[in-house]
Amino acid sequence: MQMTQRWIRWPAGTHNRTPTEGRNGPIAFGGDYNPEQWSEDVWQDDVRLMQEAGVNLVTVGVFSWARLQPTPDTWEFEWLDRVLDLLHEHGIAVDLATATASPPAWLTTAHPEMLPVDRLGTVLHQGGRQAWSPSSVVYREHSLRLVEKMAERYASHPALSMWHVSNELGCHNGRCYSELSAQGFRRWLRERYTDLDTFNRAWATDFWSQHYGTWEEIEPPRIAPSFSNPTQQLDFARFSSDALRDQLRAEVEVLRRHTPDVPITTNFMVMGHFKEVDYGTWVDDLDLVSNDHYMMAHDPEAHVELAFSADHTRGLAGGQPWMLLESSTSAVSWQPVNTAKPVSQLRRNSLTHVARGADAVCFFQWRASAAGAEKYHSAMLPHAGTDSELWRSVVELGADLQRLAEVSGSTVDSSVAIIVDYENWWAAELDAHPSSLLAYRRTAEGWYRSLWDANIPVDIVPRGADLTGYRVVLAPMLYLVRDADVAALDSFTRAGGQVLVTYFSGIADENDHIRLGGYPGAFRDLLGVRSDEFRPLLGEQQVALEGASLGALTGTLWSEPVVPTDAIVLATYTDGPSAGFAAITRAARGEGKAWYVSTELDAIGRRAVVDAVCAAAHVTAPIGATAGVEVVVRRSADVEYVFAINHTPQEGSVAAAGTDLLTGQVRPAPVLIPA
Amino acid sequence: MQMTQRWIRWPAGTHNRTPTEGRNGPIAFGGDYNPEQWSEDVWQDDVRLMQEAGVNLVTVGVFSWARLQPTPDTWEFEWLDRVLDLLHEHGIAVDLATATASPPAWLTTAHPEMLPVDRLGTVLHQGGRQAWSPSSVVYREHSLRLVEKMAERYASHPALSMWHVSNELGCHNGRCYSELSAQGFRRWLRERYTDLDTFNRAWATDFWSQHYGTWEEIEPPRIAPSFSNPTQQLDFARFSSDALRDQLRAEVEVLRRHTPDVPITTNFMVMGHFKEVDYGTWVDDLDLVSNDHYMMAHDPEAHVELAFSADHTRGLAGGQPWMLLESSTSAVSWQPVNTAKPVSQLRRNSLTHVARGADAVCFFQWRASAAGAEKYHSAMLPHAGTDSELWRSVVELGADLQRLAEVSGSTVDSSVAIIVDYENWWAAELDAHPSSLLAYRRTAEGWYRSLWDANIPVDIVPRGADLTGYRVVLAPMLYLVRDADVAALDSFTRAGGQVLVTYFSGIADENDHIRLGGYPGAFRDLLGVRSDEFRPLLGEQQVALEGASLGALTGTLWSEPVVPTDAIVLATYTDGPSAGFAAITRAARGEGKAWYVSTELDAIGRRAVVDAVCAAAHVTAPIGATAGVEVVVRRSADVEYVFAINHTPQEGSVAAAGTDLLTGQVRPAPVLIPA
Amino acid sequence: MQMTQRWIRWPAGTHNRTPTEGRNGPIAFGGDYNPEQWSEDVWQDDVRLMQEAGVNLVTVGVFSWARLQPTPDTWEFEWLDRVLDLLHEHGIAVDLATATASPPAWLTTAHPEMLPVDRLGTVLHQGGRQAWSPSSVVYREHSLRLVEKMAERYASHPALSMWHVSNELGCHNGRCYSELSAQGFRRWLRERYTDLDTFNRAWATDFWSQHYGTWEEIEPPRIAPSFSNPTQQLDFARFSSDALRDQLRAEVEVLRRHTPDVPITTNFMVMGHFKEVDYGTWVDDLDLVSNDHYMMAHDPEAHVELAFSADHTRGLAGGQPWMLLESSTSAVSWQPVNTAKPVSQLRRNSLTHVARGADAVCFFQWRASAAGAEKYHSAMLPHAGTDSELWRSVVELGADLQRLAEVSGSTVDSSVAIIVDYENWWAAELDAHPSSLLAYRRTAEGWYRSLWDANIPVDIVPRGADLTGYRVVLAPMLYLVRDADVAALDSFTRAGGQVLVTYFSGIADENDHIRLGGYPGAFRDLLGVRSDEFRPLLGEQQVALEGASLGALTGTLWSEPVVPTDAIVLATYTDGPSAGFAAITRAARGEGKAWYVSTELDAIGRRAVVDAVCAAAHVTAPIGATAGVEVVVRRSADVEYVFAINHTPQEGSVAAAGTDLLTGQVRPAPVLIPA
Repeated sequence: MQMTQRWIRWPAGTHNRTPTEGRNGPIAFGGDYNPEQWSEDVWQDDVRLMQEAGVNLVTVGVFSWARLQPTPDTWEFEWLDRVLDLLHEHGIAVDLATATASPPAWLTTAHPEMLPVDRLGTVLHQGGRQAWSPSSVVYREHSLRLVEKMAERYASHPALSMWHVSNELGCHNGRCYSELSAQGFRRWLRERYTDLDTFNRAWATDFWSQHYGTWEEIEPPRIAPSFSNPTQQLDFARFSSDALRDQLRAEVEVLRRHTPDVPITTNFMVMGHFKEVDYGTWVDDLDLVSNDHYMMAHDPEAHVELAFSADHTRGLAGGQPWMLLESSTSAVSWQPVNTAKPVSQLRRNSLTHVARGADAVCFFQWRASAAGAEKYHSAMLPHAGTDSELWRSVVELGADLQRLAEVSGSTVDSSVAIIVDYENWWAAELDAHPSSLLAYRRTAEGWYRSLWDANIPVDIVPRGADLTGYRVVLAPMLYLVRDADVAALDSFTRAGGQVLVTYFSGIADENDHIRLGGYPGAFRDLLGVRSDEFRPLLGEQQVALEGASLGALTGTLWSEPVVPTDAIVLATYTDGPSAGFAAITRAARGEGKAWYVSTELDAIGRRAVVDAVCAAAHVTAPIGATAGVEVVVRRSADVEYVFAINHTPQEGSVAAAGTDLLTGQVRPAPVLIPA
Repeated sequence: MQMTQRWIRWPAGTHNRTPTEGRNGPIAFGGDYNPEQWSEDVWQDDVRLMQEAGVNLVTVGVFSWARLQPTPDTWEFEWLDRVLDLLHEHGIAVDLATATASPPAWLTTAHPEMLPVDRLGTVLHQGGRQAWSPSSVVYREHSLRLVEKMAERYASHPALSMWHVSNELGCHNGRCYSELSAQGFRRWLRERYTDLDTFNRAWATDFWSQHYGTWEEIEPPRIAPSFSNPTQQLDFARFSSDALRDQLRAEVEVLRRHTPDVPITTNFMVMGHFKEVDYGTWVDDLDLVSNDHYMMAHDPEAHVELAFSADHTRGLAGGQPWMLLESSTSAVSWQPVNTAKPVSQLRRNSLTHVARGADAVCFFQWRASAAGAEKYHSAMLPHAGTDSELWRSVVELGADLQRLAEVSGSTVDSSVAIIVDYENWWAAELDAHPSSLLAYRRTAEGWYRSLWDANIPVDIVPRGADLTGYRVVLAPMLYLVRDADVAALDSFTRAGGQVLVTYFSGIADENDHIRLGGYPGAFRDLLGVRSDEFRPLLGEQQVALEGASLGALTGTLWSEPVVPTDAIVLATYTDGPSAGFAAITRAARGEGKAWYVSTELDAIGRRAVVDAVCAAAHVTAPIGATAGVEVVVRRSADVEYVFAINHTPQEGSVAAAGTDLLTGQVRPAPVLIPA
Repeated sequence: MQMTQRWIRWPAGTHNRTPTEGRNGPIAFGGDYNPEQWSEDVWQDDVRLMQEAGVNLVTVGVFSWARLQPTPDTWEFEWLDRVLDLLHEHGIAVDLATATASPPAWLTTAHPEMLPVDRLGTVLHQGGRQAWSPSSVVYREHSLRLVEKMAERYASHPALSMWHVSNELGCHNGRCYSELSAQGFRRWLRERYTDLDTFNRAWATDFWSQHYGTWEEIEPPRIAPSFSNPTQQLDFARFSSDALRDQLRAEVEVLRRHTPDVPITTNFMVMGHFKEVDYGTWVDDLDLVSNDHYMMAHDPEAHVELAFSADHTRGLAGGQPWMLLESSTSAVSWQPVNTAKPVSQLRRNSLTHVARGADAVCFFQWRASAAGAEKYHSAMLPHAGTDSELWRSVVELGADLQRLAEVSGSTVDSSVAIIVDYENWWAAELDAHPSSLLAYRRTAEGWYRSLWDANIPVDIVPRGADLTGYRVVLAPMLYLVRDADVAALDSFTRAGGQVLVTYFSGIADENDHIRLGGYPGAFRDLLGVRSDEFRPLLGEQQVALEGASLGALTGTLWSEPVVPTDAIVLATYTDGPSAGFAAITRAARGEGKAWYVSTELDAIGRRAVVDAVCAAAHVTAPIGATAGVEVVVRRSADVEYVFAINHTPQEGSVAAAGTDLLTGQVRPAPVLIPA
């Protein structure tokens, strides 16, 4: 992944530019703007209020297809011309959507075969959004025709600062099992495997009499009488991600042809449970990485999940600044209970994203809709209007971001990397596994949390990322590995790195075939351990571990009868199905060490292990702080920007000194952080 | 709603008529009679036992279509002739069903397109009951042909005392998403909106690129990749209710043509969770209102739900007497566990319905089926036969109802009304709302319970009901309001009424568009309050309220930062997301007052508020009673009928005196009510 | 059921034969062998290790269809020839599958109408296994063509020791609602009922207007707007079982034609919740009964369920030895959490099956798959290879079974029978019943457990089994009875037997029509009791019972107001809905007694009743043992084989003496059994 970033092309005269702005210009501040939902007199109000709030960038046109092309042969761009002109006149830059996210009803009515179909064969109809199969040629043709029109018309519009391809690709149509998808899947398989013998071997079709004699016999993993072939499921996930990427690439190709200088993004969904897309394979097609992030109301640890997602997005951006392209000022509308955010949380969340590398803070959406399926989604300007606490907070946030403008372009340095990989997420959670209770991202977030607690900066990187420069690499549940992945971790360790691998890692190859001879398969040599059986635990089951320096620990979900072949034992199971066997081990390899954790530790256990690993690597928090104060540092060539966020109800402090950008005050160490 | 009631046309010689019977004749007593399930020798037994039990009315023919028309061109009415003759000979009046509820298999086999289809596209097949789409023209034609035959043949049969259109319309086919329904929906939309511009504005189709260029593009809200358009969902509920009403009207038209003097009903399902039909829009098509009511075995408060449903049915009947057309003597057969009712409960439930305005007590069914899907549903005559406690109780109940005959025709007077509206039920519970935990009827039942506890009579009325004469009106969760609804409540208040509005009221207009500018939208002026945000609570979350006179209260589900603009604060949030803001307020408006409750209170809190509102309105229980004794009064021109039901295990008493109709005893005050 | 058993035809030279082997030859030991998943060099390793482990029988070809017939007109048998030759050379007998279990993709692609369809109309696709409708003629033809080829080619192969028809028939395709199944169902109904009048009476189609005028109108019980006709559901279960049996018979017919002397089996699934097939109606088509048995990881009583299933399989085999054809050495792969078995449990489970009549201990599968949906299913040879605790245990088990060889052919004597009947399982758990909480097998297992605790041997027999020779018969929840069933129990009792009947028995006839006049219907006379109503209990509800000799007992799920008409009362309800009525009764009938239990007792209550019944029958455990030691006796003409399994963590003992077959030691009484 070697994306060459091109940042937002700020038009001359952009509102809220300051003399102190950073390498990337000002911090972008704004949101999705859907003027088509409102009469034109409201537009005037909008641009005036945008200026009041310090908005300098809005995303326009995301769901405008049906308005732009009301019939197959009618195009109505004049209203959009007026919107862009008006925004430009008021110094607001435009992130212009290709408008392809939701096809109009005339198209799905004429071509119902383009509708997405779920695994059970249920057709997903028009009436919501994104009612298209990524494998539909008809959709592709019509959408590209629209992109062409957009690019032609607005290529030289002075407001155009970047392109926004589609919207949240894969959000609702990430897996389509239609007949069109079946055809696309077959084409994809032919390309991947070339010949049927290779294909049949990869899918192990001798199992359960699944041999395929022609490509035409192959189907997506539709609901079957029993479990579908796991490699079929895995390849279908790969294909589905690629099918969406093909749409992305096709739109990008049109845009580059017309506007080679305008940067292009598409908004990722690095958050929570979304795993439809392998973003690591998409970034090379983009000029800049942007993300949509929403928090789960019922999760008391949602602020850690936010930090994880932000660091993950930065990892996908290769460490470069990225854009928070959607978030919510307060409640969302799609969770069971959509609690409001306190306004202090709006500020805290936004600045945490900035601290972790975002040079843009944008929201869905500018003005709360009065109707439709998202009318209860909060916005920058709520139903209540400007006489509202929320609006006042948005204005304050805009001012704060202006004060932070010089931060833009700076980066975050980390000595620790966690490998988080969508392909592994798919593979580790396939059905018919030893335990359906394993959750890939939850495990990764657990390990991340230990580092977050210690204020140790972490990069979350995709498989295949360059590990040079890190001192610690965590590989939680790295189930599926290619030989090169193993070699890379081996080299990293031998060169002096500390690598931590957890249970259910190294088990399978690229085709989800077991690496035979004992677990953890591909990592037996690196870790110097071997188990002859998995011994997963029932949901309510716990096991006790005991280690000389680690003390008494608790495991859940998993255990193994680990036998050290070339490692020392750090903790041993003292009860449960693997009692008496090693539980946590460490192997010396070259200049470094390889650690193995064979169960799901609780927070205390993970912290104990992480502390030991970091101590071995001489990794510590860059800046001291009282407990519960989250500290992140961004660095430019000559300045360190220290962000400190107090998550406790008491005053905290940070062992740093300098100028407070928000107040202009010069502050000696330690800086006190109010509750 | 101005239904002109025509009561059961009692044939001369009806069994169990007494000299003291009331304006409406005797209290009807009987049940569904399905003689086609039994050999003719059983019929003789049936009529003898009906006489023994005091049965004077049976519903015949509900599920007889396949028997009456065994093939498209064969009609077999002779058996039904014999049934009606036999009943008439024994003085039993007949509520004759049009028999259209369940079409025969030959019809669905010939026209599978008439089968109902669910939201996922799953076809619901023959094999149960009601396998027809309300939008099927083929079904309409065949069913009307049957109605015509029935009306022709039995127009002048002396047993015919009323018509029973179909059965529980909408019970299993209340929402059909078939292609026929799509066509019907489009026709309905064209009629409602006339032109596409009006329609697109109403559906706010600029959101999510949903603009429709032709009527043909519109679909029912079938399963989509994401949330369907909320106005589409709401209009589809309206359409679906209307489609069933069209079937009702079509059958009624045939019947009126043949028998202009015979009253017509269809059995409603005012109970529990059934919300498929907006009955308030149906009553004008009927001569008398009847209801089916079944209790939920697992609900310890089912007797309050029964009272609520009875009062709601009376409200739909415009305050006039109504018929309990189905209920169960003991267990039903469709709940997870179908517990038996103690026989004391059979009596208690039946008399509660009478107390609340029912002049008919009927059951499904006369004789328990020996086979089929409802064979475990209790009946008047159980599997065990007449040597059973149940049969003996049915005979006693029949005798009691004869003794109460003079009650018939009397009515219930209430000073309090609760607005309960099916359209609001649909709208308030649409998806993508601030909280999916809100439950419209549960909230209404909660407020009703406070009044039930106080023995204050309540009318439950549909939207648009005339509020003249009431002193208190409760509007719980009146989410969707037309301007006229607001004006009516405003006038009611200014004229001296007390109106109580609860949270999530006045939010949306008829098209489910937000009434902007701050919540509670349309009621801001009436209530004199404004909130700039909803702050719903998680499922397990509670908030504390404190008020000078109301004391310490507890809220769940919802809170708001209520700011009084022209109201006094009765209680304030002391914790939770709206801490420090007003929670309960009262505004003086003309001669009356408008109360606002911004959270879901518990029973104690609701009772405190209701007591305060009733005190302000000088509304008290008409007759005193010890706690736990339910008292209801029916009035005729010159007599008060006091019903007292003791729900406690101790003896209670009622501050009333008079003649006990069941025993003939004259009783001085207070009348003791045994446990 | 009078199956004439023909045992495995052991080829000359079979590996691990011993001089002391029993009537049935050695105990078979082995598993499913799927060499097509491995390269041929692995095969050499396989046969060597099989010999090391003492394997003497493997099942070959179960999922080989697509490999044997890669295209419609290509046959590839050479690889299988080599496999059979290799096995035979190494003295390993072959249970040869007909390979029809999973049709190849070319067949389902060419004939998609042969795919199974679920009740909702969802097509179950290729990609898993068993993607065929039992009613597909195309599948039948192609599968028989394959059977013909197999039989022709291997009829005289010396390795062929038995035929294995299909695999787990009905496992995933036991209910198919496709159009082909509808046609098959109609044919089946015509055969069963001959004329439509009889049919309509049986289905009680006068209920809910379901009369059928032609056979073509009838459908499977597909999803309908409400409950489907119960007799339709019941007949569809019968039809579905018969449709699978037809496939079995068709394959058997081919095999018998080619190899009249080779015994034929198909592997049953007598375990847990599997109820798709009425095995009692299948055994006459087979030469020997075999079973697949897997345990549920989350069930702490799984060892009792295992004993129940083993005894049930023996009952289906008419008391003769049977084969355990599949089990797992450790974890399975289809449960939510697939815990590993301790190796002690592998041995214990295997020997329990042998104790209860199994003369074969086989596993799925020989070598753990490296890929596919069952790769995490344990095997005899795990992923870790021979350097594993599991492999060493398998080798030890093989040696143990050789030492037990003389046991083969011996049988188990029981004085107690429990009637467990698949048709009753279907009928008792139909929908729209008094309680959906009733669970037929769980109730039967509960009673079985009481006898298991007492070490009293039990035969579990299908309906219609000859009851001669038993002294106690338990009939738990025998809901649906033919007159002959009642007469048989009556005769059994009058001849001196003790019969125990529990609630919800005798209620319905063969067509699921109620036996009228009071419950328990058909058993009123035999039991001398009558109830006029069911009074089921809510899920959390308990009732207290009190009996002079039985003491204080607790009931759940069910109660009835039982009135003894000709029985004595053993316990009375002291609270709950049937308080004051009899709960447990006993009637003297001829030389025997008929006991009735009208509620679901807990383990203590069941044990008290079972003790009383066994005492009355003078039935005791054949051999004493300390608590928690499971004892089973197999008998040959002149030897008693005593199996003792200690389920406690302490040493136990058995009051028996003799030679320990596993060690050769002569041991005096009592024999100590280590923890």
